[in-house]
Amino acid sequence: MAEGRLQATVEVFLKPGVLDVQGKAVEKALHGLGWPGVSDVRVGKTIRFALDPADPAGAEAEVRDMCERLLANTIIESYRVEIA
Amino acid sequence: MAEGRLQATVEVFLKPGVLDVQGKAVEKALHGLGWPGVSDVRVGKTIRFALDPADPAGAEAEVRDMCERLLANTIIESYRVEIA
Repeated sequence: MAEGRLQATVEVFLKPGVLDVQGKAVEKALHGLGWPGVSDVRVGKTIRFALDPADPAGAEAEVRDMCERLLANTIIESYRVEIA
Repeated sequence: MAEGRLQATVEVFLKPGVLDVQGKAVEKALHGLGWPGVSDVRVGKTIRFALDPADPAGAEAEVRDMCERLLANTIIESYRVEIA
């Protein structure tokens, strides 16, 4: 059922205000390598997958459900879903 | 110098063919939660930052240089740069 297959992309980032230690480490390293103009570094996750949805019209809602239940920790993380 | 500031987004993924164990784990978990239609899961990193480039025209080349030197392990990872 390759025709019914969708491509989902989920971006998960720490919410603004939550300290991003990985981002801070990358920022410090970039400054050290000679890029002082870099600031506000945030590091997030991107999850990509193929999806053969039960109901194509509800694919985005289905992926949001996956985020709520597994892919994101919604206490500290926000997510963005893209379906193509 | 807020006018000169650009927003950079870097996506880093394992190259096709490189085993993505984190992706496999997510896939198995989604199957277990009742989404058997999910396949080909890949987990990557997204790095976002503000950039005050030495030379605005060369900003993308500058960010590519950051990827080569720090943000990606180009032996096993590929990256995509977006400047806005």
